[in-house]
Amino acid sequence: MTPARFITLEGIEGAGKTTVADRITQSLRARGITLHATREPGGTKVAERIRALVLDRGEELISPTAETLLMFGARQVHVDNLIRPALARGEWVLCDRFTDATHAYQGGGRGVDRELIERLARAVHGDLAPDCTLLLDVPVRVGLERMQARRGAIDRFEVESAQFFDRVRNRYLELARTSPQRFRIIDATQNLEDVCNAALAALEDALGLVPVGAR
Amino acid sequence: MTPARFITLEGIEGAGKTTVADRITQSLRARGITLHATREPGGTKVAERIRALVLDRGEELISPTAETLLMFGARQVHVDNLIRPALARGEWVLCDRFTDATHAYQGGGRGVDRELIERLARAVHGDLAPDCTLLLDVPVRVGLERMQARRGAIDRFEVESAQFFDRVRNRYLELARTSPQRFRIIDATQNLEDVCNAALAALEDALGLVPVGAR
Repeated sequence: MTPARFITLEGIEGAGKTTVADRITQSLRARGITLHATREPGGTKVAERIRALVLDRGEELISPTAETLLMFGARQVHVDNLIRPALARGEWVLCDRFTDATHAYQGGGRGVDRELIERLARAVHGDLAPDCTLLLDVPVRVGLERMQARRGAIDRFEVESAQFFDRVRNRYLELARTSPQRFRIIDATQNLEDVCNAALAALEDALGLVPVGAR
Repeated sequence: MTPARFITLEGIEGAGKTTVADRITQSLRARGITLHATREPGGTKVAERIRALVLDRGEELISPTAETLLMFGARQVHVDNLIRPALARGEWVLCDRFTDATHAYQGGGRGVDRELIERLARAVHGDLAPDCTLLLDVPVRVGLERMQARRGAIDRFEVESAQFFDRVRNRYLELARTSPQRFRIIDATQNLEDVCNAALAALEDALGLVPVGAR
């Protein structure tokens, strides 16, 4: 049996994470792998309730520190109730955003102290880290144009400026440079079909999977 | 004008905090003080939603670390939206539980690392500390008997054992020994009327207030 793997998808709004997650899920399940496709913040009932609190554009100020604490609170619930139990059973987990997103959005975007984020990451998931992180990278202008083309309500992050997303993207790229073994950067300016193919090829390479067509 | 003061009430279940809070609120308002009587976790709409998450006895595990992060997340929202703005306007705040409760319940009761709690306290409220903390102290047996005599649903803390509340009480007493200037320990085994009188007298003494009867 292929050992359990923890895969994360990262990138700014409009990078195509949702479509890529669906495609990876189909491809891995087609190989007979039991895979949990999940997301952060969220992934369990309690964590999804925290997600709603954090994303809602209500009247109360939710400061960068409050946001960081609630993200890690939701993450702890998700890790304890879904991610660790699944991996312990030998099942795979594909997660749309994880701690890298906290570094990028709360750290890079909102200026929360890096040391605080690192301290919380140690407290919340200790030695648990993704086996592979796919960073779908697009220039902010492209991401925002795609985001604006979508329907639906705008959340507390989507109202942010291009400068904010520039800081988020730059922190993501910095994280990828710091952990080249774990990260694969995917050029997400391509059309979505090509982004999906590139993401899948990068994942197969990173995890040593035999491509489906080659079997 | 009397300068703004931040007062907190602490103690285990059944110590009489709610009644004492009401009595202090009446007494201070009778002096013409604008006072916000609030509580933690909670105190604002968002923070009360976090309170509900933390206290609910649902199916999901909420680990000691998750509990600590959610308590501090709620606290940050409460501090930013209610406590600091009120104090800045020169108004008083009386809060049923604050960071001492996190030390006592999550630290003493559940074993969360003291350094993590201290780090989070610094991040969340920096130099903001109560001017006076009244610790309503009862032996655990007495507190639990009073708690069991109440009606209503049992929350995630109230189901805990006497050993848990012993650890909580001991951590409270340790905190009081460490900060004798800030803390006043009230013997809460007395009848509630006497507990209220003792709490009020201690508060007047700590804050240098002239007792109402003496004016």
